[in-house]
Amino acid sequence: MRSDAADLRYDRRLNWGKSVIGSDTINDCIAVDSLYRFVARALGCLGVRVSDAETTADVLVTTDTWGVYTHGTKLLLGYSRRLRAGGIRTDAVPIVAAEGLAWAIVDGQSTLGQVASEFAMRQAIEKARECGVAYVGLRNSCHFGGAGYYAWMAAREGLIGLAMANDIPSVAAPGSRGAVIGSNPIAYAVPAGGRDPIMLDISIATVAGGKVYARQKRGEPIPDGWLIGPDGQPTRDASLFPKQATLAPMSAHKGFGIGLLIETLAGAMAGAAMTTRVGNWMFGDLSQPTNHGAAFLAMDAGVMSSRSEFDERIAALIDEVQAAEPGVGCERVMLPGQREWENRRRALASGLRLPADVLTTLEELASELAIEFVE
Amino acid sequence: MRSDAADLRYDRRLNWGKSVIGSDTINDCIAVDSLYRFVARALGCLGVRVSDAETTADVLVTTDTWGVYTHGTKLLLGYSRRLRAGGIRTDAVPIVAAEGLAWAIVDGQSTLGQVASEFAMRQAIEKARECGVAYVGLRNSCHFGGAGYYAWMAAREGLIGLAMANDIPSVAAPGSRGAVIGSNPIAYAVPAGGRDPIMLDISIATVAGGKVYARQKRGEPIPDGWLIGPDGQPTRDASLFPKQATLAPMSAHKGFGIGLLIETLAGAMAGAAMTTRVGNWMFGDLSQPTNHGAAFLAMDAGVMSSRSEFDERIAALIDEVQAAEPGVGCERVMLPGQREWENRRRALASGLRLPADVLTTLEELASELAIEFVE
Repeated sequence: MRSDAADLRYDRRLNWGKSVIGSDTINDCIAVDSLYRFVARALGCLGVRVSDAETTADVLVTTDTWGVYTHGTKLLLGYSRRLRAGGIRTDAVPIVAAEGLAWAIVDGQSTLGQVASEFAMRQAIEKARECGVAYVGLRNSCHFGGAGYYAWMAAREGLIGLAMANDIPSVAAPGSRGAVIGSNPIAYAVPAGGRDPIMLDISIATVAGGKVYARQKRGEPIPDGWLIGPDGQPTRDASLFPKQATLAPMSAHKGFGIGLLIETLAGAMAGAAMTTRVGNWMFGDLSQPTNHGAAFLAMDAGVMSSRSEFDERIAALIDEVQAAEPGVGCERVMLPGQREWENRRRALASGLRLPADVLTTLEELASELAIEFVE
Repeated sequence: MRSDAADLRYDRRLNWGKSVIGSDTINDCIAVDSLYRFVARALGCLGVRVSDAETTADVLVTTDTWGVYTHGTKLLLGYSRRLRAGGIRTDAVPIVAAEGLAWAIVDGQSTLGQVASEFAMRQAIEKARECGVAYVGLRNSCHFGGAGYYAWMAAREGLIGLAMANDIPSVAAPGSRGAVIGSNPIAYAVPAGGRDPIMLDISIATVAGGKVYARQKRGEPIPDGWLIGPDGQPTRDASLFPKQATLAPMSAHKGFGIGLLIETLAGAMAGAAMTTRVGNWMFGDLSQPTNHGAAFLAMDAGVMSSRSEFDERIAALIDEVQAAEPGVGCERVMLPGQREWENRRRALASGLRLPADVLTTLEELASELAIEFVE
């Protein structure tokens, strides 16, 4: 298994420089650092202070390196519209509105969701280092991009991290005709000693809205089970989304139920807007804050017991999953995050091959700001 | 919507006394309190001390009142085998093995899973009242029954509760041939002021093993998507479970990923047995402890902000969900737990109508212990 996987990585690298995506797109590889510098520079042009621009660039570009292009730099053009219109503020900083030893409520002050979320998860990590566990609720945030980044912040420092957020309703309840709850992302990351963290980043919909938009933009049909049509029945017509169709919750009542828990922790506990009162960051009034909510949990096994013992137990769990016998038609059994870490290593070594729709939005932004896309 | 639901409840009550389940079973209604007293008495006969017997009876019978018969008193016969053989101890009590302000590790000392779990959640609730949030890991536990009970313990006292546990592998990883992870239940409950708590209790499998066994026992086929056969492909043959077939994870990588998080919090953090090292409580060596792990989280919104404001926000969320327009073929949009609370009110008012397979095991146990089943 191990050597097959290594061979596969090697084979792919041979074709890496100038690559073919599907049959119709030829894109150059972009160095990760070049993309990072472009994003930070663009945000600087939009009035975002240097440290905040760097934070946001790191969140977006890291997400691209994982291969999660729906939640990476593709978001930047939308954020730029809202930054210009004032719905995302550049003249404020997130603050701790209230706190205890093991918890805090952070007011994002309508700054970039990435800036507010990075600040909030930082509080959670620091408090969990003292208390073993900590919860931080975030209000007055905006769309925070890829939830996995904040979970990884904790795992990078040896803690278990969880990150979740609410959003405008886009997901049906079991039996409902329209959207009842947001796609409410949730991510976790578990540190694994010297190995890649176990990392999962999902929405409570069967698929995230970004994936429907991507198919829409590429003119591709969608599989069954992704969307619920205006009569409450399944549909495969991506063009109906989001006005006449709604994302289906994963495993019906299970995904919907998890979504309500996220709404509770990220919305109700944090004092943020909830469901229909959350602003639509992409299509809503760009001059008004969206007041998204988010929640962050960090847990430090080293506070509660022996860190090295925890690491050994997680290593054994990883070994067991990777040694599982694959079924017919499956090459290997993978851990949550394993593909993302492989993508990231490739990207750092050989550059990023961005999908055409992402490139287009970045080039459009570069043109608007009259800056060069990448050197 | 409201009046329809009330009518439905009323109609059902008319047929309540002596009822027909499916087409082949006629069961008397059993008063909830009679069943509770039978379970406590049976456990007393098996050497369980009075307070522990009452705790366990309350967990099992409450779960039956919710209509979750796979995880209620049906488990008692299996527990009795293990109690007699010594794999569940009656001469010990759970202890706090280590603790901080916002966390504890509880050693269940191989007592009944219900006794150890109730004790552990009690610690979490007390700590969360001080710290806002608390985590308690539990090791040396056994099968804990319905996870929802422990989550509800917190909600009854105005806190958000989460409960989860690991178990022997019975669920496939995406692409695996056999079981890689336990069905790892997770439940949460959110208090809602004077209303019924929002409550979800799920396994990370498409369905819990108990539901497959129930179909097996009734000789019914199972739907697609419940089981993975020995070649890693789906099967509808319930008789293959658990030796040659494996439960499918809900939403593939999503359910599997959540299962690994539960294994981390309930197994690795708590210092309990993990995956293949967990004892099989039903079919394993009955004289040996199973060393199941569990994890409990409690959060107190009243510590972090205004309790009344939190209650209002949750009430608004509940109203919104219940006001959602149902799709074609659906009568009303329900909250997680809504059906369970309706079931419970009916059971408390008019008695429990236990499924035949549950009744059989209880009558068998009564006969073994030479006690009357219910007065």
